[in-house]
Amino acid sequence: MREVAILGVGMTKFGELWDRSFREIGIEAGLQALVDAKLSSADLGALYLGNMASGSLISQEHIAPLILDYAGLGGQHLAAVRVEAGGASGAVALHQGYLAVASGAHDFVVVGGAEKLTDVPETEANRVTGGTADHEWEAVFGATLPGLWAMIARRHMHDFGTTREQLASVPVHDHAMGARNPNAHYRNLLTIEGVMKATPVAEPLGMLDCAPFSDGAAAVVLGPLDRARKFTDTPVRIAASQLACDVMAVHHRREMTTLDATVVAAKRAFAQAHRTPTDVHVAEIHDAYSISGLVSLEDLGFVAKGDSGPTFAEGRLAPGAGKLAVNTSGGLKAQGRPFGAVGVAQVVEIVRQLRGEAKERQQPGATVGLAHDVGGTGATSVVHLLERVN
Amino acid sequence: MREVAILGVGMTKFGELWDRSFREIGIEAGLQALVDAKLSSADLGALYLGNMASGSLISQEHIAPLILDYAGLGGQHLAAVRVEAGGASGAVALHQGYLAVASGAHDFVVVGGAEKLTDVPETEANRVTGGTADHEWEAVFGATLPGLWAMIARRHMHDFGTTREQLASVPVHDHAMGARNPNAHYRNLLTIEGVMKATPVAEPLGMLDCAPFSDGAAAVVLGPLDRARKFTDTPVRIAASQLACDVMAVHHRREMTTLDATVVAAKRAFAQAHRTPTDVHVAEIHDAYSISGLVSLEDLGFVAKGDSGPTFAEGRLAPGAGKLAVNTSGGLKAQGRPFGAVGVAQVVEIVRQLRGEAKERQQPGATVGLAHDVGGTGATSVVHLLERVN
Repeated sequence: MREVAILGVGMTKFGELWDRSFREIGIEAGLQALVDAKLSSADLGALYLGNMASGSLISQEHIAPLILDYAGLGGQHLAAVRVEAGGASGAVALHQGYLAVASGAHDFVVVGGAEKLTDVPETEANRVTGGTADHEWEAVFGATLPGLWAMIARRHMHDFGTTREQLASVPVHDHAMGARNPNAHYRNLLTIEGVMKATPVAEPLGMLDCAPFSDGAAAVVLGPLDRARKFTDTPVRIAASQLACDVMAVHHRREMTTLDATVVAAKRAFAQAHRTPTDVHVAEIHDAYSISGLVSLEDLGFVAKGDSGPTFAEGRLAPGAGKLAVNTSGGLKAQGRPFGAVGVAQVVEIVRQLRGEAKERQQPGATVGLAHDVGGTGATSVVHLLERVN
Repeated sequence: MREVAILGVGMTKFGELWDRSFREIGIEAGLQALVDAKLSSADLGALYLGNMASGSLISQEHIAPLILDYAGLGGQHLAAVRVEAGGASGAVALHQGYLAVASGAHDFVVVGGAEKLTDVPETEANRVTGGTADHEWEAVFGATLPGLWAMIARRHMHDFGTTREQLASVPVHDHAMGARNPNAHYRNLLTIEGVMKATPVAEPLGMLDCAPFSDGAAAVVLGPLDRARKFTDTPVRIAASQLACDVMAVHHRREMTTLDATVVAAKRAFAQAHRTPTDVHVAEIHDAYSISGLVSLEDLGFVAKGDSGPTFAEGRLAPGAGKLAVNTSGGLKAQGRPFGAVGVAQVVEIVRQLRGEAKERQQPGATVGLAHDVGGTGATSVVHLLERVN
């Protein structure tokens, strides 16, 4: 397989974008990425689009050609493919775009992710979210995604002595980062006390432990690394793109507090890139719920099992605080959670970090980054390793 | 890219499978394909799954890991990816599986397609089908998929003198083939008169011009061609896998009676395989409506524009009747139309033809085959060329 580079990135603001349609935000992100890559759309071979629920929520399937069409590219007859993997849809779309370029099937592709969640009935958005778990064995019995993650949290507290305060330190960290990110859904600061006092959702998780429903889109342009210098002075190489799956239902897992799909995807990714977790300077990790931020940090190999609570709580993951900065974008909690867009937006943030363009959230000297996205409660996990090319 | 072969095929019966779940039919087809390939599931690297509407219809997204899980493969942590492209979902999944093997990312992958449409409210199935057209510019104004295809039919009749009888000859051909296919949804014979007298759906199309909603699943196992002989005496090579898209709405097309996406995908496929349409012995072409069978035959380059009506009506496309046999499976009309499964089932039929296993529907001496699938009214078109390896 040939080496693949990210040549351009773009994203919309995440949030409640009531005045703009699914089509519009998809196109905005894609065009930003093309402009950033200094690439003409005439050079594109394919579009890969991550989206979870446009069929359920806006009665529109078949959305990959739709976005091409509304971008004015219908007449080019590109290959356009939609990919769905719950909340990991965007990351899986990137994996497919990577394979398309790595295989030589296409030279230049756009990978996008888009989702509209705030202008549909919240009951519908909740139903759809439950559909990323095992509908017949979890959702129909009343289990919601926050409820399932809450059980994982309880078990993590029991097994490792993780405290409620440590859980709360994840959204506190995220909002501190979101405050520095103009694209973030939430830019207000939180306190540990405020998180703990918030309305309970599924104990121990409260309202401020759960990522919001957001609207938003993100896109990246991929191309062969050996042609990247033509477009950019700061190409970012995809050093690894790996995807692993696990059983759907939490009660069928080997262990509740370890996401085996993440462990395996990370191992494969570090092997592909000939790297170890200690090489990583900046990481966007899945933290749709406070507990998932903790579990992700452990399962990716950044800290030992059970050590994530103190690591977050002691503020060691902020930019400049240590060797590894985490979720400088604000993560799913503060930057926002438009399902299909999340995995692509994570990569947008890592690229900005590796280019040194992250401004007040810059991790100094970052040259190696990781993006980690999860679908449902962990049945799909995707890990990308990115490296700045000097 | 390395050469890719199809090592095994499997499919369920298509029809009203009310006593079996989405999961069950997905697994049945996949296991059949693995047994046919004499491959252990331990050798698999990935699953690609085509499905259009499980989110809308059974509240279950994230279905690729779900099918792996219920097949007992959750613990292997394979990569599992769902692809959606309306009625072309299965064909696009095959394209992605092909890229996964061709790139070297995986050695052996299963590509499946599955859909359950008959045990949901028909209004819902119709809503979902309309979602493969442009929802905001077609479906919300009352345009249905049969209605849009009916306009294409009217124009074809106007421009080329195509007759109602010629349109009716498509389902008559399909049911003659379906009668010979034990997996077909419909196995009864039709007459031209019977088709023309059937209840109108969207004139000139009647009930018997429109493919049914079906349940069903199909699967194929792919691997590197240079290792294919280890598994089978009759490997089938994927000589081309090409995908092209077009604008969504019929009223935005350059011309109503030509599906540019099909024209382009076919040209790319014949170029990739160093073949021409005259080389093809057996083809499964998209014929969800009588008119789409006609248009497909033309746009793939098998006959000149406007000549498809007489070609079908004169019975020149039955096995043994000429150099090219078409839709020996019964096509979407008689074999059935479980959206996401269709594109994979077409390839199952072509493989059986190229192996000489198609029994009373065998095209004598077939060594080169083509599969063609369309999403919506033609915004996505996929063409695969398959060759028997001697």
